Amino acid sequence: MSEKKPTTYWDYIRIEELTALQTGLAESEEELSNDEVLFITVHQVYELWFKLILRELRTARDLFRKEPVAEQELSGAARSLNRVTTLLRRCTDHFEVVETLTTRDYLAFRDKLFPASGFQSRQLRQIEIVMGLADEDRIPFGSEGGFVAALKEPDGTPSTSMQKVRATQAEGPSLREAIDEWLYRAPIDGVALDDQDSEAALDRFLSKFLEAYEAESEVSKKIALSHTKSPSETGRIDEMYTDERASVTAFFSPSDAKGGARRRRIRAAALFVETYRELPLLAWPREILDSLVELEQQFVVYRQRHARMAERVIGRRAGTGGTSGVAYLDKTALKYRIFRDLWAIRTLQIRREVAPDLDNPDYYGFLHPE
Amino acid sequence: MSEKKPTTYWDYIRIEELTALQTGLAESEEELSNDEVLFITVHQVYELWFKLILRELRTARDLFRKEPVAEQELSGAARSLNRVTTLLRRCTDHFEVVETLTTRDYLAFRDKLFPASGFQSRQLRQIEIVMGLADEDRIPFGSEGGFVAALKEPDGTPSTSMQKVRATQAEGPSLREAIDEWLYRAPIDGVALDDQDSEAALDRFLSKFLEAYEAESEVSKKIALSHTKSPSETGRIDEMYTDERASVTAFFSPSDAKGGARRRRIRAAALFVETYRELPLLAWPREILDSLVELEQQFVVYRQRHARMAERVIGRRAGTGGTSGVAYLDKTALKYRIFRDLWAIRTLQIRREVAPDLDNPDYYGFLHPE
Amino acid sequence: MSEKKPTTYWDYIRIEELTALQTGLAESEEELSNDEVLFITVHQVYELWFKLILRELRTARDLFRKEPVAEQELSGAARSLNRVTTLLRRCTDHFEVVETLTTRDYLAFRDKLFPASGFQSRQLRQIEIVMGLADEDRIPFGSEGGFVAALKEPDGTPSTSMQKVRATQAEGPSLREAIDEWLYRAPIDGVALDDQDSEAALDRFLSKFLEAYEAESEVSKKIALSHTKSPSETGRIDEMYTDERASVTAFFSPSDAKGGARRRRIRAAALFVETYRELPLLAWPREILDSLVELEQQFVVYRQRHARMAERVIGRRAGTGGTSGVAYLDKTALKYRIFRDLWAIRTLQIRREVAPDLDNPDYYGFLHPE
Amino acid sequence: MSEKKPTTYWDYIRIEELTALQTGLAESEEELSNDEVLFITVHQVYELWFKLILRELRTARDLFRKEPVAEQELSGAARSLNRVTTLLRRCTDHFEVVETLTTRDYLAFRDKLFPASGFQSRQLRQIEIVMGLADEDRIPFGSEGGFVAALKEPDGTPSTSMQKVRATQAEGPSLREAIDEWLYRAPIDGVALDDQDSEAALDRFLSKFLEAYEAESEVSKKIALSHTKSPSETGRIDEMYTDERASVTAFFSPSDAKGGARRRRIRAAALFVETYRELPLLAWPREILDSLVELEQQFVVYRQRHARMAERVIGRRAGTGGTSGVAYLDKTALKYRIFRDLWAIRTLQIRREVAPDLDNPDYYGFLHPE
Repeated sequence: MSEKKPTTYWDYIRIEELTALQTGLAESEEELSNDEVLFITVHQVYELWFKLILRELRTARDLFRKEPVAEQELSGAARSLNRVTTLLRRCTDHFEVVETLTTRDYLAFRDKLFPASGFQSRQLRQIEIVMGLADEDRIPFGSEGGFVAALKEPDGTPSTSMQKVRATQAEGPSLREAIDEWLYRAPIDGVALDDQDSEAALDRFLSKFLEAYEAESEVSKKIALSHTKSPSETGRIDEMYTDERASVTAFFSPSDAKGGARRRRIRAAALFVETYRELPLLAWPREILDSLVELEQQFVVYRQRHARMAERVIGRRAGTGGTSGVAYLDKTALKYRIFRDLWAIRTLQIRREVAPDLDNPDYYGFLHPE
Repeated sequence: MSEKKPTTYWDYIRIEELTALQTGLAESEEELSNDEVLFITVHQVYELWFKLILRELRTARDLFRKEPVAEQELSGAARSLNRVTTLLRRCTDHFEVVETLTTRDYLAFRDKLFPASGFQSRQLRQIEIVMGLADEDRIPFGSEGGFVAALKEPDGTPSTSMQKVRATQAEGPSLREAIDEWLYRAPIDGVALDDQDSEAALDRFLSKFLEAYEAESEVSKKIALSHTKSPSETGRIDEMYTDERASVTAFFSPSDAKGGARRRRIRAAALFVETYRELPLLAWPREILDSLVELEQQFVVYRQRHARMAERVIGRRAGTGGTSGVAYLDKTALKYRIFRDLWAIRTLQIRREVAPDLDNPDYYGFLHPE
Repeated sequence: MSEKKPTTYWDYIRIEELTALQTGLAESEEELSNDEVLFITVHQVYELWFKLILRELRTARDLFRKEPVAEQELSGAARSLNRVTTLLRRCTDHFEVVETLTTRDYLAFRDKLFPASGFQSRQLRQIEIVMGLADEDRIPFGSEGGFVAALKEPDGTPSTSMQKVRATQAEGPSLREAIDEWLYRAPIDGVALDDQDSEAALDRFLSKFLEAYEAESEVSKKIALSHTKSPSETGRIDEMYTDERASVTAFFSPSDAKGGARRRRIRAAALFVETYRELPLLAWPREILDSLVELEQQFVVYRQRHARMAERVIGRRAGTGGTSGVAYLDKTALKYRIFRDLWAIRTLQIRREVAPDLDNPDYYGFLHPE
Repeated sequence: MSEKKPTTYWDYIRIEELTALQTGLAESEEELSNDEVLFITVHQVYELWFKLILRELRTARDLFRKEPVAEQELSGAARSLNRVTTLLRRCTDHFEVVETLTTRDYLAFRDKLFPASGFQSRQLRQIEIVMGLADEDRIPFGSEGGFVAALKEPDGTPSTSMQKVRATQAEGPSLREAIDEWLYRAPIDGVALDDQDSEAALDRFLSKFLEAYEAESEVSKKIALSHTKSPSETGRIDEMYTDERASVTAFFSPSDAKGGARRRRIRAAALFVETYRELPLLAWPREILDSLVELEQQFVVYRQRHARMAERVIGRRAGTGGTSGVAYLDKTALKYRIFRDLWAIRTLQIRREVAPDLDNPDYYGFLHPE
């Protein structure tokens, strides 16, 4: 080991190659304004963060594809997810760097970018694919063809970016799908999926939970009704609670088109983890679910902040990619949701004291509790 | 002066009175969980920041109500606006404190809050009124009656909060209206409003600007069209540019219902400042316009982040105020826009080199330029 | 429950009382500048955050005073500590609000504050006491008497602030002491403190660890020496490694004055948790140690940022409390360290692969590992 | 223009080349852990930001090298400086990304980095040189030779990094020196440097200012003394004020070794700008001075935060560069100060109302004040 060539910072970081990449469409950087070099560089920094995000998401996904997922490894997955959230926070803050450009600074070089667009960032597409954004949930672009077609070279041939996106689509189950599978196989109240009475245990848990939920809902409703001042308000509130309960029941009886019994079990498992989150064996599963929600929240924050930057620097003119820019970004922020079941479960949690008792709480304990 | 009673930190900050206010509905703070004390305190911190925001907005508003507004004082107004933006940034970050509550922590004390709601924050309403949010732009609440009625005491009598909001409504021109008036009176190309040829100077500037704008738009369109690959895409792009130009022309010919000639002059004045922002006498006016846009951007960021916090901690259940919570917050974020003209002007800026020459650039100079 | 008086936001938050507390030394707020109201309010916000911090620190401390500390409860303690860190982050960011004051704005009301000073914040002192800052570690103030004497009323009588600080001093073991006791009682390699061979297990772990540490250190040294270019550099590096090893040995052989065998066991226990952090039963203990380090790091960041704000707004003139201000703050940032052992242990960690094998790894497992 | 090749995002950002640079010392990235890829990437992001910082600092420096500096251009310089501050804020936040590494993650690849070190970042050195950090103010490294020698290749030949640092050293006057020259030539009370009575005007301003300063200081001292409780405290305070005044007098009478009459004029000019900051012609000069102070403050915040990250991830072991790491970083944070005169002036500002009247205030006005 002592014979190896000594390391220098410049070789390790590849500083000269790295800092030679900001020439844009020019022969030399000298031809570019500070504003354009900043514009190029910020996008490069985004792509570097995206690279790290992609790597961590794949690591987490691969881990949840294992069967079984070793309890020991969950803490590693939580770290990957939390690292992604930390990176997305930095990406969110970077818009302040872009905002040191005035609209006019940007206009000085805008036309030559056409028809390039940030929508052509292959890594952002890969991140969405690895996380599990469904193709049918995507909002169409201004341009013809879908988001993959937008990655063609101008002469119509497939770009490297396009090839890499296609390869990612072929990578198999996404993080969302792998998490679903992991939840599907999770024991409920100590009864494993392939135990004989696994179905019965699931039913027992769900029916006890729903009973407790309805009792809670009834209390809330009574309090709400006690403050009403008119029959119409009473009617409105009554209806609101009735609807809420109906939607909870429906959530746990998904149609076959929506995944049927498998989806039901997945949702029940996530609810189980949230409801008994204090049990030792559930400490890491609950960290995973919390981390996924936090990660997705930060992704939405990132997208909304992106829209705000675009509106401020560019205004509501059409983007260089030919789309309507700001409005499109705001729409994707609200619609591109991946872990929908986990979000839904937040809405139906109940107070700790009223959570139904478990039949097998010991199953979730330590060998040597203190 | 040397005879005055010496000051102590505790008297100045009123520390004991301040830290005795976190009892909520209980006799003593001992009865409350850490979570509820945090919940109360975070809201109090918001109200303290809101108080400062309100004070600075009123200061800025009062300054722009003067006639004329002394150039000297604009730097003070810019400071007030920038301070508001700094405060709104902090308000945005505070949601991370609220997010240390899990859904379940919140549920433990949620029911007793009913029907109180953050929508009853009088200061947030006062801020909106002082800034100039039009009543007709407000999105109705779940509850009957408007946002002022929501501030009634439970027995139907007007609360102090309601009275203060009403008093604020009666304070006269809002910041937006005062800014409009200031812009309306601004000289254009060195010609003051009550100069004989003020109308002609305005026309001259606008027609030269629009000519330049159309030329720029034509260049962009040609570039865009040079990359199209199908007649349908050509048609789409052609239409997009035609629409954009029509909307710019319409923007500078507002109907009487939309303010007519007065509104036209206000818009032209804002455009003038943005277009010749490098002139010495325009240094502070342009700071003011930039600060207003930055402030409003931060307000939208704050509202969107608020929605994200609510979704994470509370989920999409109905808020304690009886509204649909998250969706309502997201809607107000996108719809509650006050300085619409300033935002519109970002979309029609042109490159510095093509801005039309002025007739009287010297008017905007220093007495002793170096 | 449905009969209780309905809640309003204004009663719950006590909005009118809260927003009436910003008059400083004046009869009415109208007499004060925006700058002074901001100055007062920012300090009040700090005190509100300090109140929450204090409450969470006491909760965490009380939990670690229990014997034994239930494994289940550690996750609650971690939440308290992480909440404190989140709050300290917000406190750090608030200095940007203060920095909207120019030096001159501050001078306009500075003289009347004399001799009040932020050093008179009783809650910051209480936080330090509850965390466990030793009296002898405090850096003396400019004024005569210690930090408690600084809380006398101007006429020499004890203030409420002073009384509360004294009461906090009398509250018994600090968080640091409670954590020490908890670590002292922790089993090492599955052998509990009152097991017969507890001493032997401790010795075995330490000697195996130190052996591994020295081997690692030897490898590093060889690599370092292989790159040296002169005998003097070789000598310097050799000495550096020798010193480092000596200090590690000394760390695990504290003199009686430094706590002797008890301190040795505490340090070994912390090292044990860090070294085998992947074991299930150590998941929460390791979270606790990480959280304490993160919390203390954020406290130092807060203090250093405080110094930077003071330097920018006030300059290096004497503070209103009669101390040298900026330099004092920078010194306390670097010197006020509480969890010294935990910081020391970061310096002697070794790679995971070379951590010595345990005799009883199963002790730290789940009942039902997947 | 319409004939040019259409642009794609991937060509413009050079995405494939960029994302191929994270292999460190390995043949392929596959051999590296996520942790090491993160470590490499974070450093690359730092270098990209440093590149932008360097470019903006050079732009600002070149502008102040002109003679005269056109008033018009100051707003551009202020933008460059503020952009640097924004970038340094992002650099500060990035340490949170590094902190997703545990000490142990870092140890897994630490040894192979030896003797590379972040101290070998040529761009950080270039930034310090362009800003104007004096060689004699640098704190020596652990290694032999100065900071330039640390940039030799392992075989002793000069690296590209070393050559670039040397070229930067040869670029001529630094930003600090250019600012000094600009201040030196600034008119004082409307009297330009080459006006006949320029020396007299300078003396007049300084003596009137010092008179006002002493009167203020006397008031403060009386207030302070009115609260003292013992002769020793009286003596201490009396001495403190005497010292403060002596140091102010000395500041405006620098010895020849410290720059003599030229330095005196530079300091007086900076004081003049700060004292009459509300005058129109001083609006941008004051922005420049404020921006420089804010920039340097952020640089110190960055360095101190760097020390905190190093302490947390690495501990206080020797850095890979052979220095003492954390302590070194903390020392440079406090000692590497460039705009010392500007910081000193904050300490001697006085309230606006007591600033002496000017003889020629009109000199600083607009041609057409409203």
